[in-house]
Amino acid sequence: MKVGIIGLGKMGFNLSLNVMGKHEVVAHDVDAANIEKLAAAGGKGVSSLASLAESLESPRIVWLMVPAGTITENVLGELKDLLSPGDIVIDGGNSNYKDSIRRSAELKELGIHFLDVGTSGGMEGARNGVCTMIGGDKEAFDSVEELFRDISVENGYLYAGGSGSGHFLKMVHNGIEYGMMQSIAEGFEVLEKSPFEFDYEKVARVWNNGSVIRSWLMELIENAFSKDARLDSIKGVMQSSGEGKWTVEAALDLQAATPVIAMSLMMRYRSLEEDTFSGKVVAALRNEFGGHSVEKK
Amino acid sequence: MKVGIIGLGKMGFNLSLNVMGKHEVVAHDVDAANIEKLAAAGGKGVSSLASLAESLESPRIVWLMVPAGTITENVLGELKDLLSPGDIVIDGGNSNYKDSIRRSAELKELGIHFLDVGTSGGMEGARNGVCTMIGGDKEAFDSVEELFRDISVENGYLYAGGSGSGHFLKMVHNGIEYGMMQSIAEGFEVLEKSPFEFDYEKVARVWNNGSVIRSWLMELIENAFSKDARLDSIKGVMQSSGEGKWTVEAALDLQAATPVIAMSLMMRYRSLEEDTFSGKVVAALRNEFGGHSVEKK
Amino acid sequence: MKVGIIGLGKMGFNLSLNVMGKHEVVAHDVDAANIEKLAAAGGKGVSSLASLAESLESPRIVWLMVPAGTITENVLGELKDLLSPGDIVIDGGNSNYKDSIRRSAELKELGIHFLDVGTSGGMEGARNGVCTMIGGDKEAFDSVEELFRDISVENGYLYAGGSGSGHFLKMVHNGIEYGMMQSIAEGFEVLEKSPFEFDYEKVARVWNNGSVIRSWLMELIENAFSKDARLDSIKGVMQSSGEGKWTVEAALDLQAATPVIAMSLMMRYRSLEEDTFSGKVVAALRNEFGGHSVEKK
Amino acid sequence: MKVGIIGLGKMGFNLSLNVMGKHEVVAHDVDAANIEKLAAAGGKGVSSLASLAESLESPRIVWLMVPAGTITENVLGELKDLLSPGDIVIDGGNSNYKDSIRRSAELKELGIHFLDVGTSGGMEGARNGVCTMIGGDKEAFDSVEELFRDISVENGYLYAGGSGSGHFLKMVHNGIEYGMMQSIAEGFEVLEKSPFEFDYEKVARVWNNGSVIRSWLMELIENAFSKDARLDSIKGVMQSSGEGKWTVEAALDLQAATPVIAMSLMMRYRSLEEDTFSGKVVAALRNEFGGHSVEKK
Repeated sequence: MKVGIIGLGKMGFNLSLNVMGKHEVVAHDVDAANIEKLAAAGGKGVSSLASLAESLESPRIVWLMVPAGTITENVLGELKDLLSPGDIVIDGGNSNYKDSIRRSAELKELGIHFLDVGTSGGMEGARNGVCTMIGGDKEAFDSVEELFRDISVENGYLYAGGSGSGHFLKMVHNGIEYGMMQSIAEGFEVLEKSPFEFDYEKVARVWNNGSVIRSWLMELIENAFSKDARLDSIKGVMQSSGEGKWTVEAALDLQAATPVIAMSLMMRYRSLEEDTFSGKVVAALRNEFGGHSVEKK
Repeated sequence: MKVGIIGLGKMGFNLSLNVMGKHEVVAHDVDAANIEKLAAAGGKGVSSLASLAESLESPRIVWLMVPAGTITENVLGELKDLLSPGDIVIDGGNSNYKDSIRRSAELKELGIHFLDVGTSGGMEGARNGVCTMIGGDKEAFDSVEELFRDISVENGYLYAGGSGSGHFLKMVHNGIEYGMMQSIAEGFEVLEKSPFEFDYEKVARVWNNGSVIRSWLMELIENAFSKDARLDSIKGVMQSSGEGKWTVEAALDLQAATPVIAMSLMMRYRSLEEDTFSGKVVAALRNEFGGHSVEKK
Repeated sequence: MKVGIIGLGKMGFNLSLNVMGKHEVVAHDVDAANIEKLAAAGGKGVSSLASLAESLESPRIVWLMVPAGTITENVLGELKDLLSPGDIVIDGGNSNYKDSIRRSAELKELGIHFLDVGTSGGMEGARNGVCTMIGGDKEAFDSVEELFRDISVENGYLYAGGSGSGHFLKMVHNGIEYGMMQSIAEGFEVLEKSPFEFDYEKVARVWNNGSVIRSWLMELIENAFSKDARLDSIKGVMQSSGEGKWTVEAALDLQAATPVIAMSLMMRYRSLEEDTFSGKVVAALRNEFGGHSVEKK
Repeated sequence: MKVGIIGLGKMGFNLSLNVMGKHEVVAHDVDAANIEKLAAAGGKGVSSLASLAESLESPRIVWLMVPAGTITENVLGELKDLLSPGDIVIDGGNSNYKDSIRRSAELKELGIHFLDVGTSGGMEGARNGVCTMIGGDKEAFDSVEELFRDISVENGYLYAGGSGSGHFLKMVHNGIEYGMMQSIAEGFEVLEKSPFEFDYEKVARVWNNGSVIRSWLMELIENAFSKDARLDSIKGVMQSSGEGKWTVEAALDLQAATPVIAMSLMMRYRSLEEDTFSGKVVAALRNEFGGHSVEKK
C-alpha cells in the first residue's frame, strides 16, 4: 500500500518508520525540519497537502497524526478539497469521539471514508508495534485492514464498530490509564511515608515478576526508578492532555459512576497548584469556629 | 450544683464561665496562669487535682476539658485514687469513643460513673450555649441533666445512649463538618477560577439569606471574608485534629461508604504538602511512555 | 410594578403569590388549570404569550419560571417577536449559565435586556422570601431592584455581575448543596451501621441547636425524620436535576479540584442502579486470580 | 532443604506442590482431607503440629499459609512450644504488618527467627512461580534465600527490609490492585453505558496487545469475558479480604492522600448493599426542600 501520513511529531514520525517497514509512505509536516528528518531515515516527504494528495492515487489512504482540535479540523478542511470519493481518511490522533462522528458524516457527504483510530503504546509502540482501535465503516476498514495488521503488534488492532467507536475506546483506555497510574502512584506514596526504607526500583521489579499488579506501567516506573532512585530531580506536577477529562465528561453524560477515574483527574488538577483557595476557605473556617491557628503567608 | 472543671484551655475556660452563670465551679489547670485568669473572671481555681477532689462533696461532679489521648488518660488515672463511689466523671473532650467505652468500664469497677460528652459550637458556644451529646448510664445522666440544660442552648443537649454514644455522635458530627466545609470550599474554589469576579463576602451573605445552603458554617465564612476579602493573608494548609480520621476509620470498620468524608480528609492531608511523591510517580510515568516533559526541580 | 410571569409550576406558582404581595402580576402557563389555580388565589392569568405581552406596557418585565433547556429556549424564541426594545426578560429557572450568556447576547441585538437569576430556597422560599442571585446588565438590574428586594428575604438578593454570573452562582450553590447533603447522609449512614441505637430525629435536633453543623438542610432532615423515624417508607434512589453535573463540568473546564462535589454526584448515579457492570468486572477479576467465589444471579 | 508447611488451602496446597519441585516438604492441615490430597500428589503430610516439628531437624524451616488473624495467632502460639532457637518461621499469609512486627519480637525472645512474607500471583502463581516480598532479619533471609529463589519466578522475590516490611509491601500491593481493578471496571462501565456495542473480550484483548494499560489484570478480564461475554451470570457484589482496608488505614495514619485506593474500597462496600440509608437521607432532603418525588418502597 501507499500511505500518506500527515504530521511528523513524536508519534507521527515513529509511526511513519513503522509503516515504512512494509508499505510506501509519503509524508507531510508543517515543519520542514521534520520532513528532512524523515528523509534522512529513508522516507519521502512533501511540502504541502496538495502535493501529498497528488502523490497518491485514488483510492487514497491518508493518515492524520496531528494534534486534536483546531489543527485536525483545519487539516481536514483543506483535505476536503484535495481528496476524491472513495478515498480513506484515518485520524490516528486523540480526537474527541463526538468530533469524529461529526467529521465522518461530513466527509461521507463527499463520498470520502473516515476511520477514527485510537492508537496506544507510546512512542516505542508507534515505532515497533502499535495498538489500534478502529471505528468507522466496516467496508473501509476491510480495505485497509492489512495496514493495521502490519503496524500493530499481534492481536493489537480491533475494528471496534461504527463511527466514533475507535476514539471512544481510546478515550476510555486513557481513563483507565489515569486510574492505574494514580493507583501505582498512591502505593508508592504510602511506601514513601512509611517507616520502612524501600528500594523503589527493586519493589517495582518484584511486582513486575509474578505479582497480580504486573503491568507495562509498572515496568515503566521500574525503569524510571532505575534512572532516578527517588525521583528527586522532578516535580510532582501532573499535566493532562484531555482524554481523562473526556472520559469523566462521558461518564457524567452516561450517568456512569467512575469515582476512581474522576479522582485521578482531580489530583492532577490539584498538583498544578502550590496552594488552593479551597484550602484557605477551610483554614479560615477552622479559625472562625475553633480558634485554630492559620498559617500566614 | 457544684462542678469541678479540669482544664482551662480555650474551650474549658469558656465552658467554666458558662457553668458559673448558674452553678458553682471549682477549676484546675496545670498552668497557674489559667487559674488566675479564671479567678480574675470571678471563678475559683485550685492548684491540684487532690484539692479539686477535696473541694467537692460526694457525689462529686468532675468535668474534664483536656486534650484527648494521653492527657485525658493520665488525668483519669490520677482521679481514680481521688474520687469515691457514686461520683460522676464527665469527659467533655474529643476522646475516641472506644477509649470512652473502656474508661467507663474501668471506672464502673470503682463505682464511679462516666459520661462521655461530645461538645460542639466552638469557643463561642462553650461560653454562651453549647451543644452536647451525652453517652453513659442513663441514671447518672438524669442526676446531672440540669447542668446540661443550663449550659446548652435550647434543645441543645441529647442523651444519646449507652457508653461511648456521646463521643461517637460527636465524631460523626465532625465527619459531617469536614464534608460540609470541603463542600463550601470547593464551591468558592470554582468561583475563584471562574471568569466572573465575585465578591465573596456578598456571595456568602446572599447564600445565608434564604438559600438551601444557609448554615452556621456559611455565616462563619461570610465573617472571614468580611475581614479578608480574598483570604490573601493565609495559606490553604488544612490541619485536622483526629475526629475526621476516626469517622473514616469507623466507616471502614462498619463497611459504610463515606466517599465525601474520606475525600475531605484526604484533601486536608494533601494540603500539608507542597509537592507529592505520588505526583512525581505519575509525572515520571507520563514521561516514560509518551515522552511528555516533566518539570524539573 | 407590573410583572409578567411565565410558568406556574411548583416554583412559579409560589413565586407569583410572593410577587402579588407587593406588585401586580399577569401570568401565563401552558396548562389552563394552573392559570385557574392562580385566579382562585386572586391572580390574573392569560392564555397566551401574546396576551401576556399585550397586558404589559413597555418597558415590560417578564419573568420566566419554566424548565431549563428546550422549553426556556422555545419560550424565549416566541418572546423575541412579542417584546420591544427596553423590555427586561428575567430567567429565574435553572438554566445553564452558558445558555444565559448566549441568550443575553441574542436579546441584546433586539435591544431587550436579559437577567439570569438563580433562585434558591425551595417552594417555601419562593412563596415567602426567596434567595436570588442576579446576573446581567447593571442598569437593567437597577431598574428592577425593587422587585428583587420585595420578593427576597432580607439581604437575600445579590447583583452578582455580568451576564451568566447569576446562573453560575446558582449552579455552584447547588454543587455545594450536593456536597452538604451527601455529607449529612454519610453521617447518618455511619450512625445507622453503628452498634448504637440513635433516635435520628433527636440527633438532627441537637445538631441543629448550637452545633457547628447547624443548617437549614439539617432542619429539613430533622423534619423528615419526625415523619418517618428511620425513612423506612422510601428508597435511597437519588435523582439529580443537572446543576450538580454542570458544577463538575465547570470544575473540569476550570481545572478546579472538586472531589467532594464530584463524589456526591457519582453516588447519586450509583444509587440509580441495583447492580453495576463495574462490580461484575471486579468480582470476575477476584475469581480469576484468587478463586474467590462470585455471587451468581 | 526440608520445609514444614502449615495450611493446605487453595494457596498452601499449590505452594506445597511448588516447593516439592525442588525441596522436601512435610505438611500439616487441620483437615485430614487436604493432607490426603497432598499425599495423592506425592507429598508427605502429618496430622499435628507436634509431628511436623518432630519431622524437621533444627534449624527448622516452617512456612505458615493459614488465614490471617486468630488462626495465625493460634498456630504461632502452639509452635512456640514446639520450636527451638535458631528455627525460622515464615508467615506467608496476608497478616497485618503490625501483627508481624509484634510476632517477630515475641519469637525473637525465644531465639526463633520470623520472616513476614507477602505472596502474590494468585493460585496459579503459588503453583508455578510466586512473587514474594520478604521482611525480617537479613541473616535469617540469607539462610533460606535459596528457597525463595526456587519457588518464585525470575526476579520474583525481594528482601524488603526489617520486620513487617514484607507484609507492608504486600498490603500496599493489594491497595494498588484495588485501584487498578476499579480503574478497569470503571472503564468497562463506561463502555457498557455507551451508545456503542463493544465486544468486551476483543476490547480486553486489543488492550493487552501493545497498549499502555496492558497488564495481567487485563489478561484475566479478557479470560473472564471469554467465558461469559457480558458477565451476565454474576452479580456485581465486590467482597474484600482486608488488605485494601489496611492500606487505607495505613494511609490515614501516615497522612498520605490515597483517594483512588480509598474510593475503590468504598465502592466495594457500596456494592454489598442494594439500598443505602445515605441514599434515603438525600432523597428525603430533596423532597423536603424541592418537593421532588421520592421512590416509595
